[in-house]
Amino acid sequence: MAGDAVRRAVAANLGLAEDLFARLAAASRDEVGITRPSYGEREQAALDLVAEAGRGLGLGVRTDYAGNLYLTLAGRDRARPPVLAGSHLDSVPKGGNYDGAAGVLGALVAVAALRRAGVTPAEDVTVVGFRGEESPWFAVHHIGSRAALGLLPPEELESARRVDTGRTLAEHMAELGCDLAALRARKAFLDPRRVRAFYEIHIEQGPVLEHDGIPVGIVTGIRGNLRARHARCVGAYAHSGATPRRLRHDAALAVAEFMGVLEAEWLRLEAEGRDLVLTFGKVGTNPEAHTHSKVPGEMFFTIDARSHEADTLDRMQEFALAQARAIGARRGVAFELGPLSRVKPATMDAGLRAGLHAAARALDIRASDIASGGGHDAGDFANAGVPTAMIFVRNPHGSHNPDEHMEMADFEQAVAVLAAALAG
Amino acid sequence: MAGDAVRRAVAANLGLAEDLFARLAAASRDEVGITRPSYGEREQAALDLVAEAGRGLGLGVRTDYAGNLYLTLAGRDRARPPVLAGSHLDSVPKGGNYDGAAGVLGALVAVAALRRAGVTPAEDVTVVGFRGEESPWFAVHHIGSRAALGLLPPEELESARRVDTGRTLAEHMAELGCDLAALRARKAFLDPRRVRAFYEIHIEQGPVLEHDGIPVGIVTGIRGNLRARHARCVGAYAHSGATPRRLRHDAALAVAEFMGVLEAEWLRLEAEGRDLVLTFGKVGTNPEAHTHSKVPGEMFFTIDARSHEADTLDRMQEFALAQARAIGARRGVAFELGPLSRVKPATMDAGLRAGLHAAARALDIRASDIASGGGHDAGDFANAGVPTAMIFVRNPHGSHNPDEHMEMADFEQAVAVLAAALAG
Repeated sequence: MAGDAVRRAVAANLGLAEDLFARLAAASRDEVGITRPSYGEREQAALDLVAEAGRGLGLGVRTDYAGNLYLTLAGRDRARPPVLAGSHLDSVPKGGNYDGAAGVLGALVAVAALRRAGVTPAEDVTVVGFRGEESPWFAVHHIGSRAALGLLPPEELESARRVDTGRTLAEHMAELGCDLAALRARKAFLDPRRVRAFYEIHIEQGPVLEHDGIPVGIVTGIRGNLRARHARCVGAYAHSGATPRRLRHDAALAVAEFMGVLEAEWLRLEAEGRDLVLTFGKVGTNPEAHTHSKVPGEMFFTIDARSHEADTLDRMQEFALAQARAIGARRGVAFELGPLSRVKPATMDAGLRAGLHAAARALDIRASDIASGGGHDAGDFANAGVPTAMIFVRNPHGSHNPDEHMEMADFEQAVAVLAAALAG
Repeated sequence: MAGDAVRRAVAANLGLAEDLFARLAAASRDEVGITRPSYGEREQAALDLVAEAGRGLGLGVRTDYAGNLYLTLAGRDRARPPVLAGSHLDSVPKGGNYDGAAGVLGALVAVAALRRAGVTPAEDVTVVGFRGEESPWFAVHHIGSRAALGLLPPEELESARRVDTGRTLAEHMAELGCDLAALRARKAFLDPRRVRAFYEIHIEQGPVLEHDGIPVGIVTGIRGNLRARHARCVGAYAHSGATPRRLRHDAALAVAEFMGVLEAEWLRLEAEGRDLVLTFGKVGTNPEAHTHSKVPGEMFFTIDARSHEADTLDRMQEFALAQARAIGARRGVAFELGPLSRVKPATMDAGLRAGLHAAARALDIRASDIASGGGHDAGDFANAGVPTAMIFVRNPHGSHNPDEHMEMADFEQAVAVLAAALAG
C-alpha cells in the first residue's frame, strides 16, 4: 500500500480515536487527571467501549481467561500465527488518558485504516486491550499480559491485594467474569510460538523526543534494571570540630565518593557505546541522629541502574560491589548494599525495527531510535520469544501524571507507521 | 618550685576535687548523666559548693554582675593584673560531670597546692566559675564569660529564653540576684587589659589524646567555623528510566561532586600544614518527593568547616562558593548555600603555651599539641586580647554525653602542669 493511501486512511479514521479518547476520559476523570484502576469498573467500561468500537468495525471480539480483549481483522490465511498490536487500558491513580490507551486505540485506528483502504493482511491482525499493567494497584505489574502468556504465578491471584479495596486479585477477577480455574492452572491463552509479532504504541515516558523535536520514536529495547532499594553505609558519629580526619569514619563522604565513582563508570560505559542510566533517587543521613555538628555515622541510599543490555547491568553490579568494598576498607566504613534486584532487559526485534524505520521513511515521518526506560506489556512478549516492536509518541510532560500530553498530529504519525508495517 | 614539690602538693589536694566532683554529681544527677541548667538552681548549688570550698581554703570570694564566681589567692603585688584560671559550672542536658567543672576544680586544686607548698604568686591568682557556657539552654553560648568581659549584648537578656522554662535570661538572672542594671548598661566586670593571663583546663571533646595514648594536651587554638546550615541544590525531578544523562539535572550527583571536591581541597590544605576539619553532617534528598525511581530534583545539606586559622576558613568559603557556581553551571542545577555564618578562631598565647610545655617536661608529664574543636570560655578571653591557654584532659568517650569520662590520674597531671605554670 502506498504511503499516501496509508496516511489518508489513517487520517480518515483518526476521529474514531479522538471520540474514544474523549469517552474514556469522561468515564475515568478524577479530581485531577485520570484514574482507571486495574481490574476495576472503569477499566471494564474502557474495555466495553473499545469492544463496541471493534464490533462496529466488523472485527471479531474475544476475551481471554484474564479478561483481556482481542479484536481481530481476519487475514488471508487464518491458519497463520496472527500479528498482535495493542497496549493496556488501566491507568495509574491521577495519571493521564494516553498511557496505555494510546496503544489500544492506535492499533484500532491502524486496523480501521487497513479495512478502509481495502487491505486484507496476510495473517490475522488482532488489536489487544490488556488489563492490569500498572503496578500501583496490586503492587505487581503487567498482570494481563503475563496472564495471557501463562506467566502469572497463581499465588499472585491470592497474594496481590488492591491498594484501594484491600481485596485480592482473584476476587476482583471473579467479579469481572474471569476464568479463575484456567488462571490457577496457569493456562496460556497465547502461545508465544504462535504469535508472529507484537507491536505496541505508547507515549514516551521521558523528555527525549520533545527535547529533540521528533514526533515518533522506534524503541531499541526496554531497559532492565539493577536496583538496591535499601543500601546504606555505616561509619561512626563523632564531634565535627574535635575529631581530626584520621580518626573519622564519615558515612556521607564515603557515599559521595561511591556516587562519584559510579557516575564516572557510567560515563566510561556510555563512551563505549553502551546504554545506561544511573540514579541515586533517595540519599540521606539519618534524621533521628544527624546534626550539622556531628560527623555522620550513617547514610542510606538507593541505586537504580537501567540498561537494555544485560551485560552492562552485570558490569555495573560487579563495579558497585567492588567499589563498596574498596571505599569501605579505605575509609573505615561498612557499605551494606542490601538485596540487589534485577529485571531482565527486553530486546526489540531487529527486523521489525527496520520495518518501522522503512515505513517512517516511506511516509516522510521523522522517527528516531530511543530506549524505553519504563517496563511495558511488550517486554513480556519480547522476553517470551515473540518478535516485538514499540513506537513511542512524543510527550512533553512525562507520564504517570495529570499533565501527560500527546498531540493528535504526533499520534497520527505513529499510527501511520504502525498501519504501514501491518499492511506489509 | 621544684617539679616534685608541685606534684606532691597537687596529689595532696586531689581529694578536694574528688569530693567536690562527687557532691556536684549527687546534686545534678539526671535519669542518665548529669544535668546542670545554665542559670538554674543546680548551677547555683554548684557555685555554692565551690565558693564554700574556696572559703575553706582562705580565698577571697566575689561574684560579678552576671553571678560568675571568683576565688582569689592574694599575690605578692596585689596591684598587678591577676592571673585567672577556671571554666564553667553548667552542663548540657544529660551530659557528663567533667565538661566545665574539671576546669573550675582543677584551678581550685592548683591554687590549694600553691598554698600548701607555701608559694605566694607574684600577682593574685583567681579561680573562676562561669555560668551559662552551654548553648542548649538559651540557644546562645558563653553567657557568663561574655558578660564578665562586657561583651553580652543587652538584647540577649530579653530575647534568650531557656528551652525548658520558656523564661527569659533576664528573669532567670534576676532570680539568682544578678545585677541586671549593670548588665543592661553592658558594664564589664573584667577589663581585658587588666588580666595578665587566662588558663582553662577542660576535658577533650574528641578522641585524639585517647587514640594517641597521651594524658594531657596543650591547646594550639580554638577552631572557628564556617557554617551553612540550610544549603541546598535544586535540579529537576525526572523518570529514572526514561531520562538520558544529557537531559538530567540531578541534584544528588551534583552534591556528591561538591562534597568530593571540597574534601579534596581539605586534603590539599592539610598537606600545606593548615588546620581544618570539614563535615557535611546533614545530607538528604527530599522525603516528600523522592523515590528510588526518580532522578532527585532537590538535595539539602549542611557544611561545617572548622579551623584555628581565619584565612583557611576564608579559602574554604571562596572555594565552596566557586565550586557551587561551577558545578551548578556544568550540571544545570542551582546551588543555594544560604547564609554562611562565621565564628572567629581564637589563638592561644605562644608564650603561655611554651610555659605549659616546659612545665610538663619538667614534671615528666607527656603532653602534646592539640587543636580545640569546640568553643570555650577561653576563646572569649583570647579574642578580647587576654593571653590565654588551655589544657585538655584525655577523654575516651567524647563530651556532651553521659559516657564522658576522665581518669583522676590524667586530671592530676593536667592540674600539676597548671600549678607549675601558676607558680611561675
